[in-house]
Amino acid sequence: MNSDALAQRVIAGDRRATARMISLVEKGGAGLGRVMQELHPATGSSYSIGITGAPGAGKSTLTERLVGRARLDNHHVAVVAIDPSSPFSGGALLGDRVRMQSHATDSGVFIRSMAARGHLGGLSLAAPEAVRVLEAAGAEYIFIETVGVGQAEVEISDACDTTLVVVNPGWGDAVQTAKAGLMEVADIFVVNKADRPGAREAVRELRGMLDLADAGWKPAIVAITATKGEGIEELWVAVEKHRGYQEEHGLLEARRRARVEREIKDIVAERHRARVAVDEAELLACMTDEVVARRLDPYSAADAIDRALNLSE
Amino acid sequence: MNSDALAQRVIAGDRRATARMISLVEKGGAGLGRVMQELHPATGSSYSIGITGAPGAGKSTLTERLVGRARLDNHHVAVVAIDPSSPFSGGALLGDRVRMQSHATDSGVFIRSMAARGHLGGLSLAAPEAVRVLEAAGAEYIFIETVGVGQAEVEISDACDTTLVVVNPGWGDAVQTAKAGLMEVADIFVVNKADRPGAREAVRELRGMLDLADAGWKPAIVAITATKGEGIEELWVAVEKHRGYQEEHGLLEARRRARVEREIKDIVAERHRARVAVDEAELLACMTDEVVARRLDPYSAADAIDRALNLSE
Repeated sequence: MNSDALAQRVIAGDRRATARMISLVEKGGAGLGRVMQELHPATGSSYSIGITGAPGAGKSTLTERLVGRARLDNHHVAVVAIDPSSPFSGGALLGDRVRMQSHATDSGVFIRSMAARGHLGGLSLAAPEAVRVLEAAGAEYIFIETVGVGQAEVEISDACDTTLVVVNPGWGDAVQTAKAGLMEVADIFVVNKADRPGAREAVRELRGMLDLADAGWKPAIVAITATKGEGIEELWVAVEKHRGYQEEHGLLEARRRARVEREIKDIVAERHRARVAVDEAELLACMTDEVVARRLDPYSAADAIDRALNLSE
Repeated sequence: MNSDALAQRVIAGDRRATARMISLVEKGGAGLGRVMQELHPATGSSYSIGITGAPGAGKSTLTERLVGRARLDNHHVAVVAIDPSSPFSGGALLGDRVRMQSHATDSGVFIRSMAARGHLGGLSLAAPEAVRVLEAAGAEYIFIETVGVGQAEVEISDACDTTLVVVNPGWGDAVQTAKAGLMEVADIFVVNKADRPGAREAVRELRGMLDLADAGWKPAIVAITATKGEGIEELWVAVEKHRGYQEEHGLLEARRRARVEREIKDIVAERHRARVAVDEAELLACMTDEVVARRLDPYSAADAIDRALNLSE
């Protein structure tokens, strides 16, 4: 199948073509740009929701519930579970088949696990590209769930329109949360497992910390019990409210513009990196030897490669 | 102070100059290369130990204990606590002053919190550069501790010679650990808070998973109670054993060579990224507008910037 045909099939909503296209994004590589160009006119009409938090916080169960909620309104939904650290596609231990079993036969839901390490641009480039593919395929809501400890929660918040940070009762005090850098990326805090002791205290501590923050959007805090489906409607309302707030204040446009600018810069930088690795492989190996032997420092080595690239262009 | 003087003062072990140099690394930026060049001859003689794991796992307490252990042998020690997500230097809530109070007056210990987001190359470039600065300043053991959920545990394992992954009893089953991508980066598993119920089960589960892994170095599993100082000696022996294993099999050299190669590539790529942002700022803004308006796709925008950069070189 040539790239035009693949792009057209994705736009037509073909699930196998979409899965194949996500695999292309996962790998990065030379052919990707062409197909992304073909897809571009069909993109730009989804809303993306990032879901991050520590392992065991219940992110998968929450995502499954939110997918169910979005389906109530007949929205087309896509889920990407991104493992920023694993070099293995799909995740051997949590393949797509064991995930989201309740939606497995729903043609309005597309679910895909994705490794980002193969992509030269890493998560910061793979995530927005996956979003483009899925919205070209017709998804109206896209959930991006991070897997594992290597949350890369900042990259996720850069890549999506609303970021949910999932915490649990009893996970320690507010300082712990702040240490985690989560205050800065959360649009909405989700206190999951709210049927456990300490849920009210967790909400109160988060609220106390948020009161110290600047004006503007003050992150909502929603207590839920994802396993029982409790609090999902309230959470969905909070997501829609954050979306409305951003649209009203021109923030959604600004957020998406910043994302596009970053994406262009990433593409240019990663192409250059590929040139270093491929066109100047010999020089790079030689320079590496020199630095390891401490006859040269890394910056002078970079100078030499810069000069060689300029001559060859 | 000019850059030569700064480098010379770092090499002389001046603590204020070292702190200032780490601040330079934190910010990245144009002047950095020059000073790193000056420092280079004095680098290459430290051993670096990365400490990663979920928030609340007890990484700081463990680091403090390991510092104490290394000081028993009179080694010069440096600690960098890296927050890969925070844009704020030092961390407002966990400043250097509140960290490691027991070593605060020890002139053989240098402690510094560091944000990596300001550095164009991010953590992957900031971490090895911080290590260079600290070893130029005379540190023999360097502990790199990640802060927060955005562990970036892969980058940490890339940047150091031995990687400790800290887990706690009762944090869920082996699948959870594997989901977190931790099996791949751990040289040593530290089961901290081993005085709590479930420690033995945690060790057994980890061992079970490791038995499935390939040959070569099989990660050690050490149960400790950092708050009480229990198990620290055993852990230190495990670190030394891993160091010896790597040295014996030529793995340490290979690991450091790969690190240098990555570092050179990162410098070249980030310089190029800076060129895009600075030299082609107008074109980038214009291209961003075009992509936002969906008259152009990001790859075609990157093409235009590539062309402009080639013409201007």
